[in-house]
Amino acid sequence: MDVGFIGLGQMGAAMAACLLRGGHRVTVHNRTAARAQPLIAQGARVSDSVAEACRGDAVFTMLADDLALESTSFGPGGVLASLARNCIHVSSSTISVELAERLARAHAENGGTFVAAPVFGRPEAAAAGKLFVVAAGERAALERLGPLFSAIGQRTFVVADQPPLANLVKLSGNFLIGAVIEILGEAMALTGKAGIDGHAYLEILTATLFGAPVVRTYGALIAARKFEPAGFTVPLGLKDIQLALRAGQDLSVPLPVAALLRDRLLSLVAHGRGHLDWSAAGALAAADAGAPYP
Amino acid sequence: MDVGFIGLGQMGAAMAACLLRGGHRVTVHNRTAARAQPLIAQGARVSDSVAEACRGDAVFTMLADDLALESTSFGPGGVLASLARNCIHVSSSTISVELAERLARAHAENGGTFVAAPVFGRPEAAAAGKLFVVAAGERAALERLGPLFSAIGQRTFVVADQPPLANLVKLSGNFLIGAVIEILGEAMALTGKAGIDGHAYLEILTATLFGAPVVRTYGALIAARKFEPAGFTVPLGLKDIQLALRAGQDLSVPLPVAALLRDRLLSLVAHGRGHLDWSAAGALAAADAGAPYP
Amino acid sequence: MDVGFIGLGQMGAAMAACLLRGGHRVTVHNRTAARAQPLIAQGARVSDSVAEACRGDAVFTMLADDLALESTSFGPGGVLASLARNCIHVSSSTISVELAERLARAHAENGGTFVAAPVFGRPEAAAAGKLFVVAAGERAALERLGPLFSAIGQRTFVVADQPPLANLVKLSGNFLIGAVIEILGEAMALTGKAGIDGHAYLEILTATLFGAPVVRTYGALIAARKFEPAGFTVPLGLKDIQLALRAGQDLSVPLPVAALLRDRLLSLVAHGRGHLDWSAAGALAAADAGAPYP
Amino acid sequence: MDVGFIGLGQMGAAMAACLLRGGHRVTVHNRTAARAQPLIAQGARVSDSVAEACRGDAVFTMLADDLALESTSFGPGGVLASLARNCIHVSSSTISVELAERLARAHAENGGTFVAAPVFGRPEAAAAGKLFVVAAGERAALERLGPLFSAIGQRTFVVADQPPLANLVKLSGNFLIGAVIEILGEAMALTGKAGIDGHAYLEILTATLFGAPVVRTYGALIAARKFEPAGFTVPLGLKDIQLALRAGQDLSVPLPVAALLRDRLLSLVAHGRGHLDWSAAGALAAADAGAPYP
Repeated sequence: MDVGFIGLGQMGAAMAACLLRGGHRVTVHNRTAARAQPLIAQGARVSDSVAEACRGDAVFTMLADDLALESTSFGPGGVLASLARNCIHVSSSTISVELAERLARAHAENGGTFVAAPVFGRPEAAAAGKLFVVAAGERAALERLGPLFSAIGQRTFVVADQPPLANLVKLSGNFLIGAVIEILGEAMALTGKAGIDGHAYLEILTATLFGAPVVRTYGALIAARKFEPAGFTVPLGLKDIQLALRAGQDLSVPLPVAALLRDRLLSLVAHGRGHLDWSAAGALAAADAGAPYP
Repeated sequence: MDVGFIGLGQMGAAMAACLLRGGHRVTVHNRTAARAQPLIAQGARVSDSVAEACRGDAVFTMLADDLALESTSFGPGGVLASLARNCIHVSSSTISVELAERLARAHAENGGTFVAAPVFGRPEAAAAGKLFVVAAGERAALERLGPLFSAIGQRTFVVADQPPLANLVKLSGNFLIGAVIEILGEAMALTGKAGIDGHAYLEILTATLFGAPVVRTYGALIAARKFEPAGFTVPLGLKDIQLALRAGQDLSVPLPVAALLRDRLLSLVAHGRGHLDWSAAGALAAADAGAPYP
Repeated sequence: MDVGFIGLGQMGAAMAACLLRGGHRVTVHNRTAARAQPLIAQGARVSDSVAEACRGDAVFTMLADDLALESTSFGPGGVLASLARNCIHVSSSTISVELAERLARAHAENGGTFVAAPVFGRPEAAAAGKLFVVAAGERAALERLGPLFSAIGQRTFVVADQPPLANLVKLSGNFLIGAVIEILGEAMALTGKAGIDGHAYLEILTATLFGAPVVRTYGALIAARKFEPAGFTVPLGLKDIQLALRAGQDLSVPLPVAALLRDRLLSLVAHGRGHLDWSAAGALAAADAGAPYP
Repeated sequence: MDVGFIGLGQMGAAMAACLLRGGHRVTVHNRTAARAQPLIAQGARVSDSVAEACRGDAVFTMLADDLALESTSFGPGGVLASLARNCIHVSSSTISVELAERLARAHAENGGTFVAAPVFGRPEAAAAGKLFVVAAGERAALERLGPLFSAIGQRTFVVADQPPLANLVKLSGNFLIGAVIEILGEAMALTGKAGIDGHAYLEILTATLFGAPVVRTYGALIAARKFEPAGFTVPLGLKDIQLALRAGQDLSVPLPVAALLRDRLLSLVAHGRGHLDWSAAGALAAADAGAPYP
């Protein structure tokens, strides 16, 4: 298929490479053109403009935040103005439910097709084409996108036909990751202060009822107090928790653990720890109990 | 080996049966004698007194709470007064760290040996000899108990030589189960109110980062709002969360999510929901968002 | 002095009337012109446009929220475009710190003068000219405004020379009112469930350490469960708590009680209680303890 | 009247002196006899035993905690065993509702009379006979005690005929003091970080809606960060908050702000700040926002 790909950050570049490996023709665009170089070697065409990337069967956007997606989508020369007939806009960024709603509405008014397909997985998974794709949109569009999702992910979950619901699932998932960081942090503060080794404790957890990747990954970081280099920084985590709280607000759903997490992450920012991985939030229960601040 | 077993509730009876199947000679004792009948058929000896159960190589106590273990252990005719030389007292109940400390001290003063070996697993796992044993005590004693632990569990974790630490790990584990109930409840309140099916949502979670038994088991109960019959009732959950908070208090460790859970469970009791499974706490975020009270 | 007054809600109309009684010439403007009628009888001039209200010594804006003030201030024909040389823009609305910052910046760029002067007090206090004015801005401007503040309030507090700080003080004050509602709600849930009469309890509080107007006013509403008619509705309270949380976010200040309050108010909205006075949040601790939902 | 007074701490000694000044015959008893010396000069009789203090019209106990009152009340030579016919036991200590219930029951079984009369006020108020007395018990007994309450306090509030309810009111009052410390701490963290002076801010609060002694007293301590010398230490505050939470638990009343306060105070203990005044909890919101730990 002919695919455009806008946004070549760590995740986006890996996803575009997977599409190339999957045999698709990929036209990439990035604000900073240099990021496109490695992909050219793998066969990508590079375009200077957003518009050129919007002329195939689909165009992915994988951008940092609402602001970036908003400015890339709206306005003259943006995705909405440039989208070819039959080209599907696939948004894989982690964005607000609200922006997803605006985009869905704007595309519908334009007669275009919009699909939200945020992904779960870290850069390694993206490089290996092993992401999980959470997709929402019209059934026909999702079917057409099947080969592309197969190229980037190990499994696709279709959650609804309204695109914003895929974004809500993604935000709720990031909230759950943060929540696991918090509860592991509390449990390890308690057992750790009594003298139990964090790694040994974690082995008990994962061997019994808690054997999930999220527990293994984040538990190990908390046990080792290894918050640098950051895989996902405190401000990025804070942004997503705020988006989850905002979604809760719009739906009138109180989320007390999300509120607690927000406070943990704000405290890290206030203490100049914005460069740390957001798993540092898992060290704050221990800090409240007298351990050094992470 | 010669083993006494005091406390034939659902868990205790299953554990005693495993010991019998493992080829050990088991003398059982229960306040309500009728509970011993099925075990007699499997070869157990029954004793009227606590004392008789304390004459072998080890005596397990698997009782409902601190009060029951306290009254069985102390006083004339109790475990401490009756324990034969070389008989190890193995406490598998979920009790307070404080009582474990008192028992450890009292046994030490008596020249006896005390091991804490609480278990993770539900009655089905106990029946199948597939519990996880979390043990703490003197190394030599733990080694002698190896064959008994193998009979009841699929794996034994040795956490420390001070027995109370095993109880702390057990309490922290129950706190984590409750915490997972809460955070799943929040995430499912958010996504559910937007119209996403709970079971479909759960499938995404468990297929991606959150594929742990605790998520599968409790997530399914919350998604189905199936809180009866109770596997573990609200008051039992509340008791354990209070013991975790109490342990936190004694160690000066604030545990905000445990405090939230305590409030959730108190609210269920206040609403006359004490007969429900404690996973009903996972329906309270949705209730706060306007869904029916569980 | 010559004063413009934009925004004739319950509070604004009362404040404009006070200015008239204080001997000032007042030109009023309101989106819905009918609201100006009673003031004409008291001597006010009415203007159809925002611009006409911006030609005196000062123009007050007393509008419902950020959106209303924003659309009245910016754009062609707005306050910024219309402000006469030497006319001071006095914003008395409860708005976000962020909008106050934007207004301060925009006025500065225009060479105009901006003062933030939000007020504490209910409509009765406004009618009696007994508000408390919390003002921030350039000293010279505040001095010139003295006679106007005296006309509407019993006392003026100058908090800073940067206008947004007055808005922050106002938001923090509304947060504190909400927080008192919550803590009274908890204390009264506890003592009430034991059988102590709420009014009698409140008398003890106010006669001893807690004798503040906020305790008397809101305590009486909670004790009587009298949440209609609303003096200040749940959504208005929620809006202000969110602005306080937002200010906390921008300053990296975690505010756990504000987060709790937000959840209380969201729950009221979710239960269709948006028409109630926000003191209904003070009935939710009791509801969690089994009392009827307000 | 003939009065016994047991417990001559700072509060007790001041109350006993007031009784003497009121013209009553007072027999004092204290574990550490030296504390009685100053009262002898004012006319008190000293007794070596609890029993001798229990032979008049009433005997007050004003002891540090549950443990002290329990050991003074029960057992041979204790208040219960020694109480003369017609002598009323008046407990003014801040104790658990549970112990008050046990005492009320034990006295009833003994045919004796028990009144709970905890007091609000600091040592200065006690010295001036200006305490507030919160009393509960049989009407006839309360009437007989009138002259004694008048000697120690400026006002007596009768809350119920079941004594434990007076203790519940006292605990709820101490919870409210702590809650005010927390919410002032949050508001001052927010405004303080923006640059507003704490004392100036407090003046606005107390001049407007928040003019209560509790705001003035604790607000000034927080603004000045003056937590030494302690009027009421962190561990004492923690004990009372735990008693309030315990009362909430027994009545199934969730108290989220009390839970937050408990965490604040636990954190102070964990950081070795047990010697500070409990108003130091009001500095923790600022500490979370990056200010120095108190």
